[in-house]
Amino acid sequence: MTTIRAWAAPRAGAALEPFAYDPGPLGADEVEVAVESCGLCHSDLSMLDDVWRRGAYPLVPGHEAIGRIVACGSAVPQAARAVGQRVGIGWNASSCMHCAQCVAGDAHLCADGGETIVGRHGGFAERVRCQWTWATPLPEGIDAATAGPLFCAGITVFSPLVEFGVRPTDRVAVAGIGGLGHLALQFLRAWGCEVTALSSTAAKRAEARALGAHHAVDSRSREALRALYGTFDFVLVTVNVPLDWHALLKTLAPRGRLHFVGTVLEPPALPVPHLIGGQKQVSGSPMGRPATVAAMLRFCARHGIAPRVERFPMAQANAALAHLRAGRARYRVVLDADFA
Amino acid sequence: MTTIRAWAAPRAGAALEPFAYDPGPLGADEVEVAVESCGLCHSDLSMLDDVWRRGAYPLVPGHEAIGRIVACGSAVPQAARAVGQRVGIGWNASSCMHCAQCVAGDAHLCADGGETIVGRHGGFAERVRCQWTWATPLPEGIDAATAGPLFCAGITVFSPLVEFGVRPTDRVAVAGIGGLGHLALQFLRAWGCEVTALSSTAAKRAEARALGAHHAVDSRSREALRALYGTFDFVLVTVNVPLDWHALLKTLAPRGRLHFVGTVLEPPALPVPHLIGGQKQVSGSPMGRPATVAAMLRFCARHGIAPRVERFPMAQANAALAHLRAGRARYRVVLDADFA
Repeated sequence: MTTIRAWAAPRAGAALEPFAYDPGPLGADEVEVAVESCGLCHSDLSMLDDVWRRGAYPLVPGHEAIGRIVACGSAVPQAARAVGQRVGIGWNASSCMHCAQCVAGDAHLCADGGETIVGRHGGFAERVRCQWTWATPLPEGIDAATAGPLFCAGITVFSPLVEFGVRPTDRVAVAGIGGLGHLALQFLRAWGCEVTALSSTAAKRAEARALGAHHAVDSRSREALRALYGTFDFVLVTVNVPLDWHALLKTLAPRGRLHFVGTVLEPPALPVPHLIGGQKQVSGSPMGRPATVAAMLRFCARHGIAPRVERFPMAQANAALAHLRAGRARYRVVLDADFA
Repeated sequence: MTTIRAWAAPRAGAALEPFAYDPGPLGADEVEVAVESCGLCHSDLSMLDDVWRRGAYPLVPGHEAIGRIVACGSAVPQAARAVGQRVGIGWNASSCMHCAQCVAGDAHLCADGGETIVGRHGGFAERVRCQWTWATPLPEGIDAATAGPLFCAGITVFSPLVEFGVRPTDRVAVAGIGGLGHLALQFLRAWGCEVTALSSTAAKRAEARALGAHHAVDSRSREALRALYGTFDFVLVTVNVPLDWHALLKTLAPRGRLHFVGTVLEPPALPVPHLIGGQKQVSGSPMGRPATVAAMLRFCARHGIAPRVERFPMAQANAALAHLRAGRARYRVVLDADFA
């Protein structure tokens, strides 16, 4: 019997405690990864608090894991993954690989997909497993120590640029400068766009320029938003709290798009005549295709893009969670595995 | 002094009466068209009833006019439009031709554009005027007697197929089979798609198959909609009344789009997590670019697509309005000019 040591919440809302579990036999299409570090994401908090009513306990959080493959299942293509390879694992843990979405390369849209911390044990652990498809090798030029957040926060904001055809000539705004937004600013600057950060926090607006924003605007100022009416080709919403959606729609140029990656639970009211008049679009997206994860990593290596992280030993995971919960993370927390 | 005889409503909600007006000198970039026939659209009712609070009275309705050019302003390019040419005129009457949208060919998105029956007199008249750009010549193979509705109803549902990249391999639903929907079915069948009509009217569902639908489904049946969950790449909403938007969103396949061309005034509530999970899109569009109007006419001529119309003499315009208002039009009403 194999045992994996981890940190788990015994029930919704509880602090993490040391936990050990037997993962059972390795699936034929799975890899097992020895965790070096793992990012901490707002979705971990949502799962720990059971906000989405999807939690199963004990719950081992962590879905931004970096580490080396230590075992491959019998059906893992040898040309694709091998023991010793350094990989990253994000939100997705498996896809059926035979539905219409999977066959089309859209494994992130598989209706039968598995998720790293939903009914599975995540990366706050010695080792973590996933289908080989979702363990993406790190290319040359990526700093493994800070790469974890690329696999959830990063791909969440990178994928829409690919999927919805953002062009280097576009004027793009990022609403919310946190774990996701601070990466979006870097991506968009390297993408060639004119980049505006929208944040209600003055300190973040100042930092946004260092991250790549050409402009930084107070998202709570009606006057400031009004001055932007009709200007953006793309507004990327990374927050999950209500904003003045109608004003944000008005900041779009004709043909503009308001795109959600933040799980806003209170449904915005959609002004249809406004959409019609300006031929505007509203959309959402989750993570990204496996091919896009790989493309993102190459893009990061080429442009020197990396998450700005604060590091905690994994043994201090509860302190790290409190830090994130307090809104103090700048901009992403990474836990270094320190199992003795 | 020139006088144009017309039919006008003296105030909001009033019946049409004979009316004559002096249009003043012809604008340098305008053409004047002798009206042969003019379609009747729900937007005429909305303007006559002042639903959108945009009416100016007396109001001459009619924005689906067919006729021959009888005069060209001094700045109309001779290579583009000439006296004697048969043209159609739709909702748009002018665009600034120098803003970013106009320069990009998106004259239909010009913020300074003029509209045929908003602060101007429309096509229920002997003659009607517009900027030459918006008087589109009828190509060979188009039946002038029934072509009027293509210029509003037609382009409204044709443009989104072009603008949002509908592919012949797509499964597309049309919600609402009326003036717009009956043309959408014909376009989509010729486009190569698998076409489903969604209508609450049994008789229309039967007729929808003759118009090109492969399937026809009762849009008010929750059970019928549930059977369609996850299937459509594109749902085109042509109605302006509330439907079960959440159920319609669920009929979309991953990457699917819910597209509005009907001016739904009560704002749908947008379930953001659902958009995110399936990478779905919601959008709207008005009319179409001048180039797309021309492309639509060629497409209609090539595929034998024409509006199904009921004809009234223009002198019976009030009876025609009552017919449309009662929901009895199958599928579009056209008035033949009969000024003595």
